Amino acid sequence: MEVGPVDSENYGKGFFIAIEGIDGAGCTTISRFLANQLRRKGYNIILTKEPTKNKIGRLIRFFLKEKNYRPEIDALLFAADRLCHIDEVIGPSLRKGLIVISDRYLESSIAYQTAQGVNQEWIQELNKFAIKPNLTIVLDADPEVTSKRKKGFGGEKFEDVRFLRKVKRKFIERAMQGNYIIIDANSPLKDVQRETLNIVLSFLSYNF
Amino acid sequence: MEVGPVDSENYGKGFFIAIEGIDGAGCTTISRFLANQLRRKGYNIILTKEPTKNKIGRLIRFFLKEKNYRPEIDALLFAADRLCHIDEVIGPSLRKGLIVISDRYLESSIAYQTAQGVNQEWIQELNKFAIKPNLTIVLDADPEVTSKRKKGFGGEKFEDVRFLRKVKRKFIERAMQGNYIIIDANSPLKDVQRETLNIVLSFLSYNF
Repeated sequence: MEVGPVDSENYGKGFFIAIEGIDGAGCTTISRFLANQLRRKGYNIILTKEPTKNKIGRLIRFFLKEKNYRPEIDALLFAADRLCHIDEVIGPSLRKGLIVISDRYLESSIAYQTAQGVNQEWIQELNKFAIKPNLTIVLDADPEVTSKRKKGFGGEKFEDVRFLRKVKRKFIERAMQGNYIIIDANSPLKDVQRETLNIVLSFLSYNF
Repeated sequence: MEVGPVDSENYGKGFFIAIEGIDGAGCTTISRFLANQLRRKGYNIILTKEPTKNKIGRLIRFFLKEKNYRPEIDALLFAADRLCHIDEVIGPSLRKGLIVISDRYLESSIAYQTAQGVNQEWIQELNKFAIKPNLTIVLDADPEVTSKRKKGFGGEKFEDVRFLRKVKRKFIERAMQGNYIIIDANSPLKDVQRETLNIVLSFLSYNF
């Protein structure tokens, strides 16, 4: 049985960027910034996110607020949402030759769910049909910093500094293994934006 | 990594019966009949079903009407629904020492999803945390017979005789491998009811 995510090259000439990181690291802000800047430079961009806004994504948001379910249920739902996301948005956009920027993707599942005790190989097995991004960027911020950025921090299941330290460690461990780009997201926003944009432009100039 | 469903003995002194079979084979009718008859004999019964009536089960019912999604999405959603079902209903009931009758369970996922081309080992891997029933009964009916039992047959994704023949074959193949009970469900309902009840009573007398 084939193992591991599906290569994006089977999906045509597009380019697929995933922006990953712990809550408050700035995934959404940076994804939007990147999309805007790249559009200004003439690239055709699809900005998307996980969990999605479709039916499964909405269900995930419900489960994320509930503390009484085992985390394997989240892992299965995220994997189902991701396959819908791929079939409805990511795959068709890549086939059209567009640049897809996803605000969170597979690495967020792996980092958040392993930190709750779910077996990593099992999560990867659930996601074996997921397209592999051409470029994964991990925004690396300290939970002590990000917790202060977010109003009302502590209300949701994952908003706990000790837990987020485990998530951060897993993001970095995976980034080292997978040769992902790690960006210091404790820095002022302007610096994070500039660094991310430069790296993406450099990648696109060589690979797109 | 551990593979295969979780043994129900870890869940206490209850007894877990799964009633499986193709659409129209009579799973719901026979499950209800069994529950009633066993209650009359003084057993404490929980009658339940899959997909469940909770949020994930309702989402599955939506996806079952849609033909445009890849079947792996169904497989992931059914596995998520099953873990909720186990945590909310099956597990707690078994721990209380009750007899749980589930109108469809894991074998329906395997038969229906492999018939759509999903890899069987992958489905089993998704379901590795599912409790193994003490007794699985497969109601074996011919699609040519069951399609005539159901009003408006042909409206839903799985209502197709050729497809249901594949599902039926998989149910039987798995039943042979797993030593499940196979009951001829082409027979008149009264006969199917009597045969099922006798087998369950015999099992309970030896194992419960």
